[in-house]
Amino acid sequence: MLDDLKQAVWEANMELPKYGLVTFTWGNVSGIDRERGLVAIKPSGVPYEELTPEHIVIVDLEGKVVEGKLRPSSDTPTHAALYRAFEGIGGIVHTHSPWATSWAQAGRAIPALGTTHADYFYGEIPCTRPMTQAEIQGEYELETGHVIIDTFIKGGIDPNQVPAALVYSHAPFCWGKDAHNAVHNAVVVEEAAKMALHTLQLNPNAQPMDQHLLDRHYLRKHGKNAYYGQK
Amino acid sequence: MLDDLKQAVWEANMELPKYGLVTFTWGNVSGIDRERGLVAIKPSGVPYEELTPEHIVIVDLEGKVVEGKLRPSSDTPTHAALYRAFEGIGGIVHTHSPWATSWAQAGRAIPALGTTHADYFYGEIPCTRPMTQAEIQGEYELETGHVIIDTFIKGGIDPNQVPAALVYSHAPFCWGKDAHNAVHNAVVVEEAAKMALHTLQLNPNAQPMDQHLLDRHYLRKHGKNAYYGQK
Amino acid sequence: MLDDLKQAVWEANMELPKYGLVTFTWGNVSGIDRERGLVAIKPSGVPYEELTPEHIVIVDLEGKVVEGKLRPSSDTPTHAALYRAFEGIGGIVHTHSPWATSWAQAGRAIPALGTTHADYFYGEIPCTRPMTQAEIQGEYELETGHVIIDTFIKGGIDPNQVPAALVYSHAPFCWGKDAHNAVHNAVVVEEAAKMALHTLQLNPNAQPMDQHLLDRHYLRKHGKNAYYGQK
Amino acid sequence: MLDDLKQAVWEANMELPKYGLVTFTWGNVSGIDRERGLVAIKPSGVPYEELTPEHIVIVDLEGKVVEGKLRPSSDTPTHAALYRAFEGIGGIVHTHSPWATSWAQAGRAIPALGTTHADYFYGEIPCTRPMTQAEIQGEYELETGHVIIDTFIKGGIDPNQVPAALVYSHAPFCWGKDAHNAVHNAVVVEEAAKMALHTLQLNPNAQPMDQHLLDRHYLRKHGKNAYYGQK
Repeated sequence: MLDDLKQAVWEANMELPKYGLVTFTWGNVSGIDRERGLVAIKPSGVPYEELTPEHIVIVDLEGKVVEGKLRPSSDTPTHAALYRAFEGIGGIVHTHSPWATSWAQAGRAIPALGTTHADYFYGEIPCTRPMTQAEIQGEYELETGHVIIDTFIKGGIDPNQVPAALVYSHAPFCWGKDAHNAVHNAVVVEEAAKMALHTLQLNPNAQPMDQHLLDRHYLRKHGKNAYYGQK
Repeated sequence: MLDDLKQAVWEANMELPKYGLVTFTWGNVSGIDRERGLVAIKPSGVPYEELTPEHIVIVDLEGKVVEGKLRPSSDTPTHAALYRAFEGIGGIVHTHSPWATSWAQAGRAIPALGTTHADYFYGEIPCTRPMTQAEIQGEYELETGHVIIDTFIKGGIDPNQVPAALVYSHAPFCWGKDAHNAVHNAVVVEEAAKMALHTLQLNPNAQPMDQHLLDRHYLRKHGKNAYYGQK
Repeated sequence: MLDDLKQAVWEANMELPKYGLVTFTWGNVSGIDRERGLVAIKPSGVPYEELTPEHIVIVDLEGKVVEGKLRPSSDTPTHAALYRAFEGIGGIVHTHSPWATSWAQAGRAIPALGTTHADYFYGEIPCTRPMTQAEIQGEYELETGHVIIDTFIKGGIDPNQVPAALVYSHAPFCWGKDAHNAVHNAVVVEEAAKMALHTLQLNPNAQPMDQHLLDRHYLRKHGKNAYYGQK
Repeated sequence: MLDDLKQAVWEANMELPKYGLVTFTWGNVSGIDRERGLVAIKPSGVPYEELTPEHIVIVDLEGKVVEGKLRPSSDTPTHAALYRAFEGIGGIVHTHSPWATSWAQAGRAIPALGTTHADYFYGEIPCTRPMTQAEIQGEYELETGHVIIDTFIKGGIDPNQVPAALVYSHAPFCWGKDAHNAVHNAVVVEEAAKMALHTLQLNPNAQPMDQHLLDRHYLRKHGKNAYYGQK
């Protein structure tokens, strides 16, 4: 069932060590089949060097296992919540990539400081509020999804235009049109996080980039007037 | 004698260059057979590329050589002291991994700033007090073990829940249920040390993470209610 | 047509991932045939692992495609403007290499702090002024070239002696006598940018290097009295 | 002539890219045959990937070429001056390794902040004074040697116990009992430089390590009472 999706999700998971985004098993990627409402996701705690497409677990939009012999990622309820709320997205990735995680631990949004950021993210990458005791002690992974969703709703942020969030004291979640694209965005978040820290060290008063420049770069790559790449 | 343990300790030693934890011979791993009270440990100053399982030295819990043609690591008395004091541990690793060593040189404990840390360490990773002149000029390596043990006793820290310490002006010692697991924890210490420095650069007032979140993540992976990974 | 130039430009493009200057497709190299007034440049958005010499696009000095099935880099008007204004240069490279980009995002020139810098750049590597709304919303890539040229004219800087510029809120453009040499200079900019940040962290009051030392090192490698390397 | 020395010096030069100490040709290693008073050194500007043992140039203690078809390193007069003044050394290496070079650009000695440093260097790694206009415009490379020697004489530093120096606004020179050992020390300088910067970021008031601890670690590896490694 869903062999193509499982293959694509497996490939996207294998990109995490390739791009240096993960240590050990600290990451997971999922992809969704919107027609069937089914999600393919990495099993929990399986090392990347042992992972095969057959290990990928199929769950429904409530996170219940539909197919697969292994437990799905412990972060499955977070993925499912994001798929339910963000209807335009097709893939999600969670890592503890070190530069982005440092921003999450600092409780700070990554400001849009240059065109590298603007080529992919239409504004700052937000950081959630701290989770409450009730959220942490309740359905923690589900609530992690809720606090992300909340951040986008309250901030009036379009998750299709800002495909990533930092969870306070935790790490980034990123998404995209499919699993592969989500990993692509996770790489960009890590680069942007690294450069933003160094920018602020060079200029502690650095301000977010000019709005017109942000518009120009984001729209150069996105929307009907995009002109980057081949047709 | 103890061929399986020697093989396991050799493999754990070979993981040090694999994970980028060592330059030259700046590291050593040991493992213990608790029933026999014997420790297998890397020989002193042998380059990793030349190291074979046959080189691994067997010592008793006083650090005396029982088997092996080479001198054991000069840090053997530190390992032996930790095995005597921390009865729940099965493997120990010492490295000069650069991020953790920078914290040791700064004389600072690594605070628990996020879930990456909390998944493995139930609280901050302590730094010992400076060693005294008498300790340094006496049985230095043995006293290095004592000052670590002292830090855990005085701080009321459970070495099974916080499997690492920084030795002041020196570098980290890490441990675990066996040699392989000790190296795994040493990798985590290095990642946590790196991210904690960058977190503090982004937010000099960053506080240790919420205690409920620390509990949640640590207990998600440890103890009878753990639910991370496969059964 | 221009097969040798296309081959050389392809090789120079392939050096970008080799030297760690690019993530994904965030870079492009061009080279010029001054006699014919034709430029060979990377196509837009093609991954390096798929790029072949046949993909290289030939454009004229106005940036119009003369040969090639693919769209040229979206930065082609910037390259063309620089070739028109800087008559001594034979190759141009644009990357988002992270250390140099951090200086561009901080809006700061990279000061000449040591002989590594002085061996290649006869003074600081300038950062342009911010682009205006009109420039950003107009022919943006062309105006990017103009703001670089403006920086050199107003600053009285010789582009043959300082073969690189940082574009404010964006990233570096570097050049040289040919495509390969431009990439060489881009590597130096990245090293100089990294070391300059760490120098200022160690000594926030560090001043530009002694002018006599700058002269000595630059002229040791450039001009008729150069004595570095083989004859 | 001196085929063994040329082979050893070639091997030591090839260790520079292996250990990540050089970009392009920014480094050179030499070794000396004290009986004959002859030095083997890398030729100037030859890429490491093309370098063979036959390329190594033999010069006398004044830096005059005795054998070899290529020009010796432009830094040859510096090497020769150090061999003349520091009679106990057998090999010299110069690199622009980025962490050590950042300290040189900052004009700061690298303090002994921990046991990694103390295992190899018996005290801080000094930085020379700035060179004078006359020195820079005169026999510059020779004067570079003189300013290093001056630093050791005036500081009462034993070059056998502190086998490295930073040249102000320039980069490190390191040495050792032979060419291979000099490169070994250059790797340590780079590690010590990196960790010292991060230590000071974590604790701006960090003081040099306890003198007794410095003694203990240095003497554990050096002198007649050394007990590190195999007999």
